[in-house]
Amino acid sequence: MDTAWDHRFAQRTQRMQSSAIRELLKLVNEPDVISFAGGLPGPDVFPIEELNKACTKVLTKEGSLALQYGTTEGYQPLREKIAEITSHYGIGVTAENILITSGSQQALDLLGKIFINPGDKILTEAPTYLGAIQAWAAYGAEYVTVRSDNDGMITNDLERALRLGPKFIYVLPNFQNPSGTTLPLDRRIQLVDLAERYGVPIIEDDPYGQLRYEGEHIPAVEVLDCRIRETNTCYSGNVIYLSTFSKTLAPGLRLAWVVAPPEVIRKLVQAKQGTDLHTATFNQVVAYELIKNGFLEEHIHLIRNVYRERRDAMLRGLEREMPSGVQWTHPQGGLFLWVTLPEGLDTSEIFTDAVKEKVAFVPGASFFPHGGGHNTMRLNFSFSNPEQIEEGIKRLARVIRKYS
Amino acid sequence: MDTAWDHRFAQRTQRMQSSAIRELLKLVNEPDVISFAGGLPGPDVFPIEELNKACTKVLTKEGSLALQYGTTEGYQPLREKIAEITSHYGIGVTAENILITSGSQQALDLLGKIFINPGDKILTEAPTYLGAIQAWAAYGAEYVTVRSDNDGMITNDLERALRLGPKFIYVLPNFQNPSGTTLPLDRRIQLVDLAERYGVPIIEDDPYGQLRYEGEHIPAVEVLDCRIRETNTCYSGNVIYLSTFSKTLAPGLRLAWVVAPPEVIRKLVQAKQGTDLHTATFNQVVAYELIKNGFLEEHIHLIRNVYRERRDAMLRGLEREMPSGVQWTHPQGGLFLWVTLPEGLDTSEIFTDAVKEKVAFVPGASFFPHGGGHNTMRLNFSFSNPEQIEEGIKRLARVIRKYS
Repeated sequence: MDTAWDHRFAQRTQRMQSSAIRELLKLVNEPDVISFAGGLPGPDVFPIEELNKACTKVLTKEGSLALQYGTTEGYQPLREKIAEITSHYGIGVTAENILITSGSQQALDLLGKIFINPGDKILTEAPTYLGAIQAWAAYGAEYVTVRSDNDGMITNDLERALRLGPKFIYVLPNFQNPSGTTLPLDRRIQLVDLAERYGVPIIEDDPYGQLRYEGEHIPAVEVLDCRIRETNTCYSGNVIYLSTFSKTLAPGLRLAWVVAPPEVIRKLVQAKQGTDLHTATFNQVVAYELIKNGFLEEHIHLIRNVYRERRDAMLRGLEREMPSGVQWTHPQGGLFLWVTLPEGLDTSEIFTDAVKEKVAFVPGASFFPHGGGHNTMRLNFSFSNPEQIEEGIKRLARVIRKYS
Repeated sequence: MDTAWDHRFAQRTQRMQSSAIRELLKLVNEPDVISFAGGLPGPDVFPIEELNKACTKVLTKEGSLALQYGTTEGYQPLREKIAEITSHYGIGVTAENILITSGSQQALDLLGKIFINPGDKILTEAPTYLGAIQAWAAYGAEYVTVRSDNDGMITNDLERALRLGPKFIYVLPNFQNPSGTTLPLDRRIQLVDLAERYGVPIIEDDPYGQLRYEGEHIPAVEVLDCRIRETNTCYSGNVIYLSTFSKTLAPGLRLAWVVAPPEVIRKLVQAKQGTDLHTATFNQVVAYELIKNGFLEEHIHLIRNVYRERRDAMLRGLEREMPSGVQWTHPQGGLFLWVTLPEGLDTSEIFTDAVKEKVAFVPGASFFPHGGGHNTMRLNFSFSNPEQIEEGIKRLARVIRKYS
């Protein structure tokens, strides 16, 4: 149908594309495909019964509050609880530093809206989170990238990129999406040192930080930035920190948050007012009811055990099934693992074959703002159970062997 | 605190302002203020018990679906149900024409994102919905306006504005926010005729259409646009239609929708992917569970009766209390009523005094994209009960008499 709208799309829509991952998610619905493609939590760890109790309690006792319009900043008791959780990890903030968002994706969109002028350079890891590239495309972002290895961003290469004058650094230090790598302490310190020296602030995206299956917790970039400023107890304000309940409670609630200096929160609130007024009050009040007495910590403990087993099943499967020349990361937490095939192979081509064999992944190239990564793929291990993972890796290895 | 972020805000943030209305909403929380300021539904008409049942049913039977990530377009059964409701009012559409959004505010933001280049002119009524002005400020919209009278947009003045080449027309034909006026059939026909002649498409925002307290339903602009094209049974595609569950179920769920041609839906989906991935799955599945068997029609019947009584209480109070020279609209539905004081009075000044007297309203000037309206105010009659309305109007009249 040809309508009067066809010739009226804004110029920025030319930069906007439908995400490969979102399109791939549709495959998950076909029951016989084993999907390592999405970034989906395992549905068997959703706290269904506890959520049901929380819904009933909220609707019985505070129905008119929970169903009404709310403030753009978010439900105050939830902001305070999140400030408390954040402080527990060494970042001393108050509710004034917290904005509740409709998933972390909205945090990325709002940050793009308030910071990015067309042509601004954003410094990212390569590969990096596809959702950020997609959110910021609408605002005309360009990218300078720093390559990663098995320990995340190669911070020895950072200075070259900082000299190009990026507006901010975007980094996922824990169990990165897509690579599964974790930035070690020495690289984190080098990152905050160089960022301070070049006067470039940092956005730290940490959706998976609490889902660690082995090794010791490493302080957040935000915490280390306080330390180098010798303000050990407080929040320096030069790092904006993002996290979410999507991986610890449920993504279908769309609840996440930004930790930022008050003047940034104020601008984000202005942007959010025009964007969706506020995040669903009902979801916020229910989440608060659910976590106010320590349930979150308990539930994360359960998730860790379930996902550790799945990660181990995938690592065992890869070890057993993959032909020589195939390499993969060993994630200490999170949801993803990154596979590198021999040079010259193209995972986008292999993808079509894999789907025929009823197994899915995300071809790695989409995660590189400047191209490359054609021989890489992202595998998710949180969604499927160990038996499915074993079978899926068998299928995937069968396909890859045809190309090796 | 001065941080590295301060000098990094994008140019567009200079056009973004915190909405007067959102700031005013904070007053609602002070228990002794009678607030006619917000656009809040009455909390006593929220379907709390039925929602509780729907939550329990959804979590018991479909918990892993309802808590998982979903598709950007929205939950398919809900899209189909909304297409069915829309078709019932004379617009023949299918699920392919429906995008679920996180409130109508998000629909406005996404439409701005895909259509508005900086400097584009948007044709609106004056006064018009503040949230649209706010959403589109971020995209650099400019405005051409057509004045309204007690019957809404004065369509005899429309041609002059259309000659200035607006990208689209934005109109709220039913019980307009802020004025409470309804566009009569002859003006609707003139609107679609002129829009067709000048090749300018229309965005029809209809959050209150089903909340009519007297008089006959008037066909939507979208329906009339089909008729002049002699495609009586289908959807012409030249009108984008917006509606919401915020006023018929509960705003705290943040559920609304866009009806548009498939190629516009596709662009909106791309934009929404980068903006918040999708609207909360849980809220969508629960809303579908709640309305799938006819509850919505039944519940709207109840709301109409409650709000009609409140509107009548406000009209009676104004009649009894207001000094001569004060005029107001007689809304046939919706949530708002528009008061015009004698020329020379300034409702922004009066506002401060009113809050001291424990009554609140929204000064009218904020609803005019090009200024004016200093002697006007918007009053909401859905939030307070008839006794509160009576007392609030007494207080308001007392303040106004001081200025008359």
